Amino acid sequence: MLDIWFTENHTEGYRVSWRVDKILYTEKSPFQEIAVIESPDLGRALLLNNMVQTTTRFEFIYHEMIAHVPLMMHPRPKRVIIIGGGDGGTVREVLKHPAVEAVELVEIDERVIEISKEWLPEISFALGSHKVNILIEDGLKYVKRYSSRYDVIIVDCTDPGGPSLELFSRGFYQDVFQALKDDGIMVSQTGSPTFSPHFKQAVENIRQVFPHSKPYLTSEPAYMAGFWTFTIGSKEYKFDHINAGRVLTADTRYYTPEIHRAAFVLPKYIDQLIK
Amino acid sequence: MLDIWFTENHTEGYRVSWRVDKILYTEKSPFQEIAVIESPDLGRALLLNNMVQTTTRFEFIYHEMIAHVPLMMHPRPKRVIIIGGGDGGTVREVLKHPAVEAVELVEIDERVIEISKEWLPEISFALGSHKVNILIEDGLKYVKRYSSRYDVIIVDCTDPGGPSLELFSRGFYQDVFQALKDDGIMVSQTGSPTFSPHFKQAVENIRQVFPHSKPYLTSEPAYMAGFWTFTIGSKEYKFDHINAGRVLTADTRYYTPEIHRAAFVLPKYIDQLIK
Repeated sequence: MLDIWFTENHTEGYRVSWRVDKILYTEKSPFQEIAVIESPDLGRALLLNNMVQTTTRFEFIYHEMIAHVPLMMHPRPKRVIIIGGGDGGTVREVLKHPAVEAVELVEIDERVIEISKEWLPEISFALGSHKVNILIEDGLKYVKRYSSRYDVIIVDCTDPGGPSLELFSRGFYQDVFQALKDDGIMVSQTGSPTFSPHFKQAVENIRQVFPHSKPYLTSEPAYMAGFWTFTIGSKEYKFDHINAGRVLTADTRYYTPEIHRAAFVLPKYIDQLIK
Repeated sequence: MLDIWFTENHTEGYRVSWRVDKILYTEKSPFQEIAVIESPDLGRALLLNNMVQTTTRFEFIYHEMIAHVPLMMHPRPKRVIIIGGGDGGTVREVLKHPAVEAVELVEIDERVIEISKEWLPEISFALGSHKVNILIEDGLKYVKRYSSRYDVIIVDCTDPGGPSLELFSRGFYQDVFQALKDDGIMVSQTGSPTFSPHFKQAVENIRQVFPHSKPYLTSEPAYMAGFWTFTIGSKEYKFDHINAGRVLTADTRYYTPEIHRAAFVLPKYIDQLIK
């Protein structure tokens, strides 16, 4: 058997390798190195700067949990913006909610969108919806322009490091707060509570800006081992159950109303880490 | 920096590597290759046949969840047996329940116990308790001898493969059922629902033997990525909450009554996998 492997360094002392069947595509965009590979345990995988971003086998876990939790907290999520998310998986889940009238997707790197459209159609197909407005821009600058505009803001970015570090800053969350309507909700992926060096500070930054905030958990086999977190910041609605006015109609493979509630129950050591 | 790594092959296409600072001890016992290493991201780690069994950094996650869930389901867990578990971590958690009067630990490989006593004292110290009776024997054969003897049986074994495969068989679970009192509870670690080839069959085997059964989840960074499962088999008590007669007095870092309940809420794809 050919013995070809992709290796991702999660920390200085922890790395994961996945067998590679095919390197389907590689490109250096102005922002990052992009690759699409095929691996027996991941399916087709999109790599950005040598880190697994999304995979056809496991993407439903991340995309359902980043989209349905904030959307089901809100009674009428009409206008949604996604910062990042150029692969289109989050858009696909957001559009499963009939209440959603318009989605803006603000992706800094147009090539991520184009490459996802070509190589990951089952993830990216919803980018073509008439409800979606794609803006090739820096999300940091884009949200600054708006006030009381969005029901839900989803920060679907790469792990902190380099340019994305600002997307975990208190200043950015203040801009997000401003851009949300009076009962708006934001969510950001906040990484591994075990291995991500910025998890604790990101959660603290969101807490300083929003009246209601809490991390919630999933575990995504293509990311670092252990739990993976998202953190909610909410102006009005409580986080740990679906809104009384909502019924889940979306077809899902991971998310259920029971999972929504359970995901906010933190093991004691994670709870203590953010106190 | 010295660039020395330990690599564990989780599947034919997925492997994890941890940087090694020191190889503290290695030995071939009659049953397996045993090693103790130090790694910046794991702390001290016990390896059996080149697989991470337990680590000083993360062992509390596994040991608390395998012990406190079955013990808190039971109103008066007096007599407990652990099959495997030679590192002593499960014993330590079991003995945090004052109701427990006697623990039998049946470990096939005496060297695991001795090496854990020497190199992992913070995990193994409870093996010296006067409540603990250590038996160097094959747990498969040991449980066959008894009937209606135990309140709780904990199967704390290595992943299926080689000799431990029998510990996931229907025949073994029938012997366990027999060895339990009329209201007894068993739990077994049942591996990764994503990457362990025997997860589904093990859950099915437990379901065929016990009136109440269900997997529950944690995520342990030193094991395969994604969720990790344990499965309960119970003769009488329901699994998803603590017994009405019990209050948690154990000092824990992971387990809480809320975690107990939340751990039984399965993502839809795992629920469908075992249906």
